[in-house]
Amino acid sequence: MVNVAVVGPGLVGQALIQQLLAHEVPGLALPLVGVINSRRMLTHSAPSGHLQPLASPGQWAKQLADAEAADLKAFVTRLAATPGPSVIVDCTSSLAIAELYPAWLAQGLHVVTPNKKGFSSQYELYAAIRAQTGPRRPLVYHESTVGAGLPVLNTLYDLVRTGDEIVRIEGVFSGTLSYLFNTFSSAGGNDAQAFSAIVAGAKALGYTEPDPRDDLNGLDVARKVVILARVAGLALSLEDLDVENIVPAALRTVATADEFMAQLPASDDHFTELNREAAAAGTVLRYVGTVDPRGRSSVKLVRYPFDHPFAGLKGSDNIIAFTTKRFASPLIIQGAGAGAAVTAFGIFADLIKVAERTA
Amino acid sequence: MVNVAVVGPGLVGQALIQQLLAHEVPGLALPLVGVINSRRMLTHSAPSGHLQPLASPGQWAKQLADAEAADLKAFVTRLAATPGPSVIVDCTSSLAIAELYPAWLAQGLHVVTPNKKGFSSQYELYAAIRAQTGPRRPLVYHESTVGAGLPVLNTLYDLVRTGDEIVRIEGVFSGTLSYLFNTFSSAGGNDAQAFSAIVAGAKALGYTEPDPRDDLNGLDVARKVVILARVAGLALSLEDLDVENIVPAALRTVATADEFMAQLPASDDHFTELNREAAAAGTVLRYVGTVDPRGRSSVKLVRYPFDHPFAGLKGSDNIIAFTTKRFASPLIIQGAGAGAAVTAFGIFADLIKVAERTA
Repeated sequence: MVNVAVVGPGLVGQALIQQLLAHEVPGLALPLVGVINSRRMLTHSAPSGHLQPLASPGQWAKQLADAEAADLKAFVTRLAATPGPSVIVDCTSSLAIAELYPAWLAQGLHVVTPNKKGFSSQYELYAAIRAQTGPRRPLVYHESTVGAGLPVLNTLYDLVRTGDEIVRIEGVFSGTLSYLFNTFSSAGGNDAQAFSAIVAGAKALGYTEPDPRDDLNGLDVARKVVILARVAGLALSLEDLDVENIVPAALRTVATADEFMAQLPASDDHFTELNREAAAAGTVLRYVGTVDPRGRSSVKLVRYPFDHPFAGLKGSDNIIAFTTKRFASPLIIQGAGAGAAVTAFGIFADLIKVAERTA
Repeated sequence: MVNVAVVGPGLVGQALIQQLLAHEVPGLALPLVGVINSRRMLTHSAPSGHLQPLASPGQWAKQLADAEAADLKAFVTRLAATPGPSVIVDCTSSLAIAELYPAWLAQGLHVVTPNKKGFSSQYELYAAIRAQTGPRRPLVYHESTVGAGLPVLNTLYDLVRTGDEIVRIEGVFSGTLSYLFNTFSSAGGNDAQAFSAIVAGAKALGYTEPDPRDDLNGLDVARKVVILARVAGLALSLEDLDVENIVPAALRTVATADEFMAQLPASDDHFTELNREAAAAGTVLRYVGTVDPRGRSSVKLVRYPFDHPFAGLKGSDNIIAFTTKRFASPLIIQGAGAGAAVTAFGIFADLIKVAERTA
């Protein structure tokens, strides 16, 4: 049994709660004991003050809207005072929340999260989180911070903890950039569409951030590379990475997303030329993050031969290749690396691991 | 801490012991307390009779050769009587050994194994093993029974335990058959070699069983499909599968492997014709196992379009695709699915999970 409290029930948190309530895990109880957003918090306390499972968990959203004012510190104190193991699921993308993990862990709470900030911001925060965890100490699981529910980090943790040597980690870690380049540059002949038209189409479908420059600048991919590098044992931070910002230089200071989109077609020739050169060399373009333990880790546009697994990528799938001493032919994991249901799946699987390890 | 005892230290068991001794897992102790093969057994007991870590574990092979006569029952009794959690690693491929798991588990021992027999033979044995395990009861991990160290079963367990719906599991699960068909039938144009020549080459390189019919009959793949199906919740056994034995009918009763190899060229036209038809349809041939929860599960030659991930498979890699309700675009795992080092890695990672859950 492990008590579950959710911070920041947005799309992912809602999907998680839905999965938790819809499915009972044989032999393990994962009662939902609290939900908090930036305005309200919902808990259900016994006279002792200890938290109880929410009385009507299926009604949590409705009840939260009418619940008491949010006080994260009080919420965490109630959870920590409740007997039995408890886990906080941070479904925000907030650095300020991630900065609280060391204190939460020090209070004996476990942490499961898809929030990248705690693992990819200043190294001191990462080290402080690690210092509070260990085989017998509170647990931290964050599978969904890279590739959503794809078994990327659990696999990397297994490789590292069994003493395998990481030679290289390479992958397409952004569903958005996967979609853009899979559409723009494919082994089956390049699409007639201009790059700006593909970006506009993706934006219309909701595949990009509101300002697509937040995808094209590579920062989201860079955070994932930092997480992978740190799990692989490298004391690396964002500033140590070579990140290729593919937003054309002239468009980086344009004020609004709309103006950016309006001016992007002026750069189409640039992208078309890159693509033409790649195709002439029998390759496609992919926007790839690489962890290189012996050299510079990077985020950049890379060419791959038509028969490379990255060249065959479809839709908005992520793909990651681990080359290690034992896996000389890379261990590859591929599939949907974004979306509420698969992200929630990764969190749910992490929660089961916490429940098993505290059973 | 968990005491580790290895049964059947062949190539995989030796690789495992080498990995265990070469690498200390931070915060977790995995002392090697016993090794047994069919002739000898090596343990090191305190005056109390309790097992101690082997005195010079690096010398285990030499010491085993001079150790006492093997008595598996006594070996297990000593292990079960030793305080603290203990795990037996069955590195044999013996059904008779696998039939002992329920009794071992009933004695409180954990089991980690790459031996497929306990999970793919009569359903009653599988059910008896499952009946002895659970969140708080002794643990069974068998990641390396399918795809060696590739994170196949842990991923499937996560999908199932979080309530995802398995729509289809499909994969190339034999390194040998992967190699044969990747060489014979590729998107880049088919090799000029006859099928029999490719089999002969693979045999010479040690890629096949001593009698290649033990690969071509599909039984090894069928066992893996049964394991996947059972983990997915289906009460399926070998006899429920449609298995395509690609050994030509006339060659199934030929007495020796040499005679089989001598007569195989007479079937080359048959395979060449299959391959030609596949290529004409823009496809390649792959020998694939499929779990279909709503229909018949099977093991057979299947055609895949040139741009399908299975068509791009190289060398002797395994590949597996999980299609689920949440992962509508399949979750794919690919890489070396055979070999002592990667099989041992899968076992080692399982041992760490046991150690963490009993910490």
